[in-house]
Amino acid sequence: MSSTYGENLKLSIFGQSHGPAIGMVLDGIPAGLPVDPDKLQEFLNRRAPGQNNWSTPRREEDRPEFLGGILDGYTCGAPIAAMIRNKNTRSGDYENLKDCPRPGHADYTAQVKYGGFQDAAGGGHFSGRLTAPLCIAGGLCKQWLEESGIRIGAKLHSIGTVGDDEFDMVRPQLDQLDPAFPVLNQKAGEQMKDVIQYAKDQGDSVGGMITCAITGLPAGLGEPMFGGVESKIAQIVYGIPAVKEVSFGSGSYCSLMYGSQINDCFTMENGEIRTLTNHCGGIQGGITNGMPVVFTVAFKPTPSVSLPQQSVSLSRGENATLEIRGRHDPCIVPRAVPVVEAAAAIAIYDLILGNTQTDRRKP
Amino acid sequence: MSSTYGENLKLSIFGQSHGPAIGMVLDGIPAGLPVDPDKLQEFLNRRAPGQNNWSTPRREEDRPEFLGGILDGYTCGAPIAAMIRNKNTRSGDYENLKDCPRPGHADYTAQVKYGGFQDAAGGGHFSGRLTAPLCIAGGLCKQWLEESGIRIGAKLHSIGTVGDDEFDMVRPQLDQLDPAFPVLNQKAGEQMKDVIQYAKDQGDSVGGMITCAITGLPAGLGEPMFGGVESKIAQIVYGIPAVKEVSFGSGSYCSLMYGSQINDCFTMENGEIRTLTNHCGGIQGGITNGMPVVFTVAFKPTPSVSLPQQSVSLSRGENATLEIRGRHDPCIVPRAVPVVEAAAAIAIYDLILGNTQTDRRKP
Amino acid sequence: MSSTYGENLKLSIFGQSHGPAIGMVLDGIPAGLPVDPDKLQEFLNRRAPGQNNWSTPRREEDRPEFLGGILDGYTCGAPIAAMIRNKNTRSGDYENLKDCPRPGHADYTAQVKYGGFQDAAGGGHFSGRLTAPLCIAGGLCKQWLEESGIRIGAKLHSIGTVGDDEFDMVRPQLDQLDPAFPVLNQKAGEQMKDVIQYAKDQGDSVGGMITCAITGLPAGLGEPMFGGVESKIAQIVYGIPAVKEVSFGSGSYCSLMYGSQINDCFTMENGEIRTLTNHCGGIQGGITNGMPVVFTVAFKPTPSVSLPQQSVSLSRGENATLEIRGRHDPCIVPRAVPVVEAAAAIAIYDLILGNTQTDRRKP
Amino acid sequence: MSSTYGENLKLSIFGQSHGPAIGMVLDGIPAGLPVDPDKLQEFLNRRAPGQNNWSTPRREEDRPEFLGGILDGYTCGAPIAAMIRNKNTRSGDYENLKDCPRPGHADYTAQVKYGGFQDAAGGGHFSGRLTAPLCIAGGLCKQWLEESGIRIGAKLHSIGTVGDDEFDMVRPQLDQLDPAFPVLNQKAGEQMKDVIQYAKDQGDSVGGMITCAITGLPAGLGEPMFGGVESKIAQIVYGIPAVKEVSFGSGSYCSLMYGSQINDCFTMENGEIRTLTNHCGGIQGGITNGMPVVFTVAFKPTPSVSLPQQSVSLSRGENATLEIRGRHDPCIVPRAVPVVEAAAAIAIYDLILGNTQTDRRKP
Repeated sequence: MSSTYGENLKLSIFGQSHGPAIGMVLDGIPAGLPVDPDKLQEFLNRRAPGQNNWSTPRREEDRPEFLGGILDGYTCGAPIAAMIRNKNTRSGDYENLKDCPRPGHADYTAQVKYGGFQDAAGGGHFSGRLTAPLCIAGGLCKQWLEESGIRIGAKLHSIGTVGDDEFDMVRPQLDQLDPAFPVLNQKAGEQMKDVIQYAKDQGDSVGGMITCAITGLPAGLGEPMFGGVESKIAQIVYGIPAVKEVSFGSGSYCSLMYGSQINDCFTMENGEIRTLTNHCGGIQGGITNGMPVVFTVAFKPTPSVSLPQQSVSLSRGENATLEIRGRHDPCIVPRAVPVVEAAAAIAIYDLILGNTQTDRRKP
Repeated sequence: MSSTYGENLKLSIFGQSHGPAIGMVLDGIPAGLPVDPDKLQEFLNRRAPGQNNWSTPRREEDRPEFLGGILDGYTCGAPIAAMIRNKNTRSGDYENLKDCPRPGHADYTAQVKYGGFQDAAGGGHFSGRLTAPLCIAGGLCKQWLEESGIRIGAKLHSIGTVGDDEFDMVRPQLDQLDPAFPVLNQKAGEQMKDVIQYAKDQGDSVGGMITCAITGLPAGLGEPMFGGVESKIAQIVYGIPAVKEVSFGSGSYCSLMYGSQINDCFTMENGEIRTLTNHCGGIQGGITNGMPVVFTVAFKPTPSVSLPQQSVSLSRGENATLEIRGRHDPCIVPRAVPVVEAAAAIAIYDLILGNTQTDRRKP
Repeated sequence: MSSTYGENLKLSIFGQSHGPAIGMVLDGIPAGLPVDPDKLQEFLNRRAPGQNNWSTPRREEDRPEFLGGILDGYTCGAPIAAMIRNKNTRSGDYENLKDCPRPGHADYTAQVKYGGFQDAAGGGHFSGRLTAPLCIAGGLCKQWLEESGIRIGAKLHSIGTVGDDEFDMVRPQLDQLDPAFPVLNQKAGEQMKDVIQYAKDQGDSVGGMITCAITGLPAGLGEPMFGGVESKIAQIVYGIPAVKEVSFGSGSYCSLMYGSQINDCFTMENGEIRTLTNHCGGIQGGITNGMPVVFTVAFKPTPSVSLPQQSVSLSRGENATLEIRGRHDPCIVPRAVPVVEAAAAIAIYDLILGNTQTDRRKP
Repeated sequence: MSSTYGENLKLSIFGQSHGPAIGMVLDGIPAGLPVDPDKLQEFLNRRAPGQNNWSTPRREEDRPEFLGGILDGYTCGAPIAAMIRNKNTRSGDYENLKDCPRPGHADYTAQVKYGGFQDAAGGGHFSGRLTAPLCIAGGLCKQWLEESGIRIGAKLHSIGTVGDDEFDMVRPQLDQLDPAFPVLNQKAGEQMKDVIQYAKDQGDSVGGMITCAITGLPAGLGEPMFGGVESKIAQIVYGIPAVKEVSFGSGSYCSLMYGSQINDCFTMENGEIRTLTNHCGGIQGGITNGMPVVFTVAFKPTPSVSLPQQSVSLSRGENATLEIRGRHDPCIVPRAVPVVEAAAAIAIYDLILGNTQTDRRKP
């Protein structure tokens, strides 16, 4: 299936960048969960465009209208449905794309798959704009997880070659993050902004990485094999446009090391079982061990650049040079931070709803 | 769900390392597909233990018995079921593990999740041994893909800090790989074996990375968002024990670059649309573009090391020192190469069965 | 999961009777399928309330607004999303129901399941009104099936104890049905209307049965066991409120007979394989045999009656007498005819998308 | 998908009538559930063939071998896998069937779907023999439900035109049923046996109906729309060969009546909310109301009759007369009683695992 996620909750995302609306249906959520619309809006605003000088000038308020599932501030047991009307649409900018696909975008693959019937304007259903309904669902799940003491916080790991300090994987510093531009090292943050500004000035774009930490998780969450925490998070995170890598804990760094260096040894700490290090990112055998779950996501640069690029004319079957006009972000990574949090929140909430953990102890 | 994968095919894997048998059921496969048992056995042998001096001395023939679904050398439309009897079981080696979990293994998380009822011997259902039935399913899918000209080949990317030459991402050199120890640079291969031998001599283990390439794929395969090729491959690959990172194309390298550097520009080549580079790994918007799909997987070292490690006694609630006896591989990465291929084959075959590509062209 | 159906397409239905809107998302549909909005509206009108003297006086136009997935009259490959705003809401009529549940309705079960958080107005998510989005999805699938020569037509089998003539199961008379009140025997139709009028005059309601026939199906559709045509149709049809029985072909009549009487013998007819009778309703082993698929659905009377009924006060924990005010249909069965067609169309289209029929023939 | 059932548990059934083995994998079951193998065997024996003079003389012990998932008498959290070796196979009896399909069987539909590659012997994967692994899964679920006070008991409703007394739908008499031939009215039971003997003597077969009651269910189980108790039970029950009708509560009888007659009025009974009647079969809006869930299933006669029947020769494309030799039951309905119980147990256990009932109460 395509734009549907989840085994215990069912998330269905719909809409195209320049269609009438974008939205989502979130089914399988118990009744009685509180919904704080202001907090949700605050969360959505972190992703919304047009809020600073490096994001696309397209202005969308991204104010969801709930169509069902919420009553008097609580979930009512019916599927939660919400939509955001697309207002600021300029489909005229995109007419050329069906014949001359933009490198790095889904224009060409959509053309092949959908035979020319696809909604090409603004990338259609492949647009980063579709992460807004993902954030509605994820923002709700995040609220409900917080109710149980589970916190999710992501930060910029790097922009281009400029890296932030790493999370303390044993005690990630979620409280030190400023949602407006979440880094641990402010100086690195300033350099990141410089890199973004440089890309913008060049009519270019730049990539980056995001690290996300989830604290307060109980041990025992996740299912073996394909139902593990890594499988579930990776599946949904790879649904975010431009993601090219997902790693857990120390990721490929583990592959460089010897087992004696990388094994996370257990220790008793105030009567609780913890690990001294957290190279595995809080997950063993797909199942949480009670330590923070930490994962890192790499984004390629948004492929929309103003520079001329080589492409082909599908109708003429020959090479062609493409110049993209229209609005775009020089770097989508800062705006992707809440999207990564949203994806993680949905995956974790899905796992919690379907948790097969036993309530018995062998005598 | 746990040990079940797929939306169009349904793969269900069962068994524990030292239980009566391990096996799989593969449902949803059309009838009439040829099955070459010798070729399958050859594929399974690449994963089987005890074949060289760096893999575990546990000897298992890993010869599957088919219980259903295959008749006279063809799939018959019924679910394909196969099992491998566990013969060489030594459960006595593992008695201590329920109280004193091995660092890096799933002993502790299984204990918490299953309340002590889990089959702890040899890691039980979490054992790498469960990749054998994955290889049965994947070996079959690989055969069927080859019928349509789709080839899957993986190679060692690195062992510890020793790296092989990279695949040519535009034309991966699948024909240059020796299944016994698949590298492009034989000298690097020798160094890798040295690293493994060193780890073995130290009673230690070492990690590594594997790159997998899939050629011959049509453009248009994969579904948007959570049904994209990356989502489906990552979900199943993270079901392989010890995987800590999955990346596509140039992976996190893309995040370091500018869009103008990393965009894969289109070009006409003998009347076919290709890209000049393949940083995106053959996937745009989750959908294949006709170029090779390339992905890389990082494995942490197997956590079984002979050196003493710090752990805890669950019954006494205090720190304890653990020394692991029993057989283990100093490096599971070479044996994981066919497992990665198997996982890729299953994911791709699932996508093909459910492909929503239109058969029409807009006038 | 709850309000989600399908394995190859994914239908997600949302909304409550008196909430902001009702609607649906239909994912997994190929691009390039034509959509005739007038024909769809005509289909929806058959279900819409307020069109004659026996249906509820609540007037809703049931005019869907498409939010995504359709472009220039064709599916575009993105999920199809549509909603209908609820206009004629009178939630004041329903305030009492959370304390004193209506017999036969889902008021009590919703109260228990959702702990009082449910949207009780008009039955909320359990309202028959939710069959409108089902008809949007089903009306679309019906159009696409007709493109391939597959026709779906349902008729009244009975209202109360008044029965229509039965379909010829071998050649169902789809062309003889008047959508306004589809019966084969017009005299029986008049008597049915009399029964409905009688129930209305008494402040009572009456049940009935519907038979649905699907012609033009290829042989070989459906999967074994739980993926059979009967399983898939029954699952979705039981999602329609008030359904208490689903039977295929001659249904329970078969159980009264001997095998020699009820077996559908094969015969060659103009070079085609047919059966002489069709007691099995076109399905053997869950798979179509090329004969019409015929099934019958029994609806209980709508539980909304104006007569006083015994119920309980949940707050006081004692018996109470309930008198229901507000609009309701004396008989929902005529309006349910297109709903049954819609459900069948969705189930069949789902089966077609996921059909594992082989394209090979054993030599 | 085909031979796979469940959303929270995943049941996968494999095997063919005369293949090496039949079996099942049941995934998603929590650890620590006790398994009583003797009780399971007793349950399986109720379905096993060759136990009396009216069932097929084929003798199979149907003794499952567990391949995984159970340790020391408890579920261990890994998927439960079991198989039964097929011993008494006589595939020679069935050679003719690929050319001349038996009326009423799946021979023809399998031939079309699988292109001649299907395992035709004994009906292959479509054989009633595949209900044995269903009974393994269902027998286990039944044990676990009984742990929570949920009992499932089915009885013969009728054989041919001979009917048993009906269950008291408010208090079904589960304790009065003799598993060997479960009827309430022993005299009716003797007449049923006579009918079966008559069919046998004629070389014919006869159908019948089964009513199943589930007691001890909490109110609030089941999900709205397509996830309702009726949808889930109907889907799995229609996976049993020969089922042609599934009804809940009073089934189509409801459709004959007026709402005032059929509504189940609420009443307080010893502080508990009950209904005075149970025409709805314990389900409202797809969700249990705390009353017994009661449903009835109609089976057509097994199509294997010894009498000559008209069929066609697929190779010659002309009519042909078929005489079936080989073993068969004159009436499969008595042996189907535990199968219906098994199906119900699996559906209910699946619903319990995924229950979204809230644990909160609105203030």
